[in-house]
Amino acid sequence: MASRVKRIFSHIDDGVDLVVFANSTDPHVDLSFMYATGLTDGLFEGCAVFCYPNGRAEIVTSVLEEEAAKKSGLPLHGFFTRAERERAYKSLLKGHRKIGLNFAEITHKAAEEIRNWAPKAKFVDVSQAVMKARLVKEPAEIALLGKAARVASQAFEDIVDDIRPGRTESEVAADLVYAMQRRGASGPSFRTIVGSGPNSAEPHYTAGPRKIRKGDLIVIDFGARCNLYCSDVTRTVVVGKATEKQRDIYETVYRAQAASMKRMRPGVRAKSVDTVARNVIDSSAYKGRFIHGLGHSVGLAVHDGGGMNQASDIVLRKDMVFTNEPGIYLPGYGGVRIEDDVWIRDGAPRVLSTAPRELIEL
Amino acid sequence: MASRVKRIFSHIDDGVDLVVFANSTDPHVDLSFMYATGLTDGLFEGCAVFCYPNGRAEIVTSVLEEEAAKKSGLPLHGFFTRAERERAYKSLLKGHRKIGLNFAEITHKAAEEIRNWAPKAKFVDVSQAVMKARLVKEPAEIALLGKAARVASQAFEDIVDDIRPGRTESEVAADLVYAMQRRGASGPSFRTIVGSGPNSAEPHYTAGPRKIRKGDLIVIDFGARCNLYCSDVTRTVVVGKATEKQRDIYETVYRAQAASMKRMRPGVRAKSVDTVARNVIDSSAYKGRFIHGLGHSVGLAVHDGGGMNQASDIVLRKDMVFTNEPGIYLPGYGGVRIEDDVWIRDGAPRVLSTAPRELIEL
Repeated sequence: MASRVKRIFSHIDDGVDLVVFANSTDPHVDLSFMYATGLTDGLFEGCAVFCYPNGRAEIVTSVLEEEAAKKSGLPLHGFFTRAERERAYKSLLKGHRKIGLNFAEITHKAAEEIRNWAPKAKFVDVSQAVMKARLVKEPAEIALLGKAARVASQAFEDIVDDIRPGRTESEVAADLVYAMQRRGASGPSFRTIVGSGPNSAEPHYTAGPRKIRKGDLIVIDFGARCNLYCSDVTRTVVVGKATEKQRDIYETVYRAQAASMKRMRPGVRAKSVDTVARNVIDSSAYKGRFIHGLGHSVGLAVHDGGGMNQASDIVLRKDMVFTNEPGIYLPGYGGVRIEDDVWIRDGAPRVLSTAPRELIEL
Repeated sequence: MASRVKRIFSHIDDGVDLVVFANSTDPHVDLSFMYATGLTDGLFEGCAVFCYPNGRAEIVTSVLEEEAAKKSGLPLHGFFTRAERERAYKSLLKGHRKIGLNFAEITHKAAEEIRNWAPKAKFVDVSQAVMKARLVKEPAEIALLGKAARVASQAFEDIVDDIRPGRTESEVAADLVYAMQRRGASGPSFRTIVGSGPNSAEPHYTAGPRKIRKGDLIVIDFGARCNLYCSDVTRTVVVGKATEKQRDIYETVYRAQAASMKRMRPGVRAKSVDTVARNVIDSSAYKGRFIHGLGHSVGLAVHDGGGMNQASDIVLRKDMVFTNEPGIYLPGYGGVRIEDDVWIRDGAPRVLSTAPRELIEL
C-alpha cells in the first residue's frame, strides 16, 4: 500500500526516515499496521510493519501468520522465537536516525523495546500524521465503509419489528448482532447499545436484562465490521404511539441532524458543524441536554481519529467519513439519538447508512 | 477491591508508592483498570485508577461515566474537559517518588503524558506484578469464568446439530455467537474460528465463505464474555463418519490433553505440562505437528498473561485458570484441536467447559 505509506509521510515534515507500526498482544494492536499493509484479515500479534518515505514497506511476522501476511505482497521477515524477532527488528532498525512511532496505538513496553534496539536513533510521535492520513479515505475504503453501513442498516430493518414489550434489551442486541453477521459482517464493530426507557438517557449505557415496556423510548446504537472497516449507526424507536413530548424531542434531534448535515462539506471546520446542531438543540426546550460531541471519524476503528466537536481543529475534506449523531438526554425520563455515517464529497455529502431516519412507532 | 490492589503490590518489592492504570481510546484500554476497581461494565476511555500500597484506590473518570464508576464504591474525581483531567491526574501524582505503570497495557502516549505530569518521579514497569496478581483468581472471578465456560459450552451444544454440508463457516460462527448471547453472554470473547476442511489446519484461521462439505474436519474455537470474564473453548467435529486417519488424529490429541490435564496441579511447572502433551504427539505419527503452546491463562482477557508453553517460567498455583489446547495440524489435509478451560485446585483440576470432549460425527 505505497500510496498509504506515502500519505502518512506527507504529514511528517521533520526528516523521519522510518516509521514502525508494532503490535503487542490483542487488543493492544495498532490498526495502522493493517492500514499500511493493506491487509484486511488476521491478528498479527507481536508483528510490525517498517515503512519508508518512498512508500516501501516490509513486514516482520510470526511464521504462524506468514500465509496471511503474504496477501499484502510485501517483503516478509518471518520469526518463530523471540530471539529471531529481535534480530529481524534490529536489522531493519539499523542505520536509521529518526524513527517515527504511533505513540497513541503502541504500548509503552513495545515502544521502549524498540528504543532499546536502536539506542542511537531519535524517536518521534507520528500519531497526528497517522490520524490525518487515515482521515481521508481511498475509494476501496469508502466501498468497505459503505458496505459496513449498509449491512448494519439492513440488519436493523431485519429485526426492528421484533422489538416488543417483554423482550429484554440484551435479546434485541443479540438479534441485531446476529442479523449483521448473517448479512456478511465479521462481527459487530463495538458492543451494541440497546437502552430502553430511562436507560436511553445514558449515552454510555450498553444493554442489560431490563424488559422493554410499552411507551419506552429505545436508543439502539450499533455497527458492523466488514473486512475490518466499521459502521456506527443509531436509531431511536418508541414502543407504541409516541407522546407529544417524545415526538417533540425526536423532531428536535432530527432538525439538529438535518441542519448540521448540510454543513458537512469540504473546507468547513468540524467544530462549526457541531455548533450548528448544538444551536438547534440549545434554542429548544432541551437546552444543555446535548451532552457529547456531534460526531467522529469512522474507518478501521469506530472512533478512527478526530472528533467533530467543540474541541476539534479538523477541517473537513473530500473523502472523509464522519458520524453525525446529535442527541437529547433527559435523566430519569429517556433520550433520543440519531446517528448516520456521512461521506464528505464535493457538493452534498452522501449518507452511507440507509435505515429510515423518521421516528418509528412500534 | 482492596484485596486485588494489595495483591498487585505484594509482587512489587522496590518501594513503589503508587500504581496508575490509565486507559486511552478503545481498544487501548487496560483491563487492569477493571480488575483494580472491581467494575464489570463500562468503557472508561481516558480514565485511570490510582492504587496505593495499603489497598486504597481512587478513580479519575469522565463525568459521562461517573454513574457507572460509582458502582465501585471508590472515591471519584470527575472531569469534563482535558484541562480538568490534567488537574486531577497532577494532584494525585503529586508527592509520589516511584510510580508503577503497566507498560504492557498502557499506550506510549499515555505513559509519556503521565511522566510529564510527574517530572521528578521515577517510573517502573509493574506489568509482571499485574500479570502475577491476575493469574490467581478470587472466588468471584472463578464463578464468572465458570459461567463464561458454561455459556459457551451450552451454546455449542445448541448449534452443533445445525452444522451440515452446504452451510458456510461464517454462518456457523454467527449461529454460535448468537447462541452465546441468548444464553447470557455480553458477546464473544474473541472472533469465533470455524475452520473447515483444509482451513482446519491453520490455527490462526477465523471463518470465511467456504461451504462445509461431507468428510470435513471442522475446528470450532469460541468463547463467551460474561461480566467481562472470558472463556476459550475448542471442539473439532467431523461431517459424516470419521475416516480411520481422522479418528487416529483425534484420539492422539485427546490422549495428549488427558495426559497433560492430570499434571495441572499446584507446584507443577507450566512448561512441564506442555511437555507431557507434546511428548504424546511427538511419539505418534504426527511428530512436529503440534505447532503452538499448550495453553494460556484466561481471565479478564482471553490471553490473560502467562502462557503454558516451552518458554514459560510459570509455576501453577491453586486458583489459576488455564486453557489446555493441544492440536495436530496437517497442511492441506486438516487439523484437530481440543481446548478446555481448567481451574487448578488442590488435588484434581476442575474442567469448567462442559461440552462433550468425545469426537462428534455429524
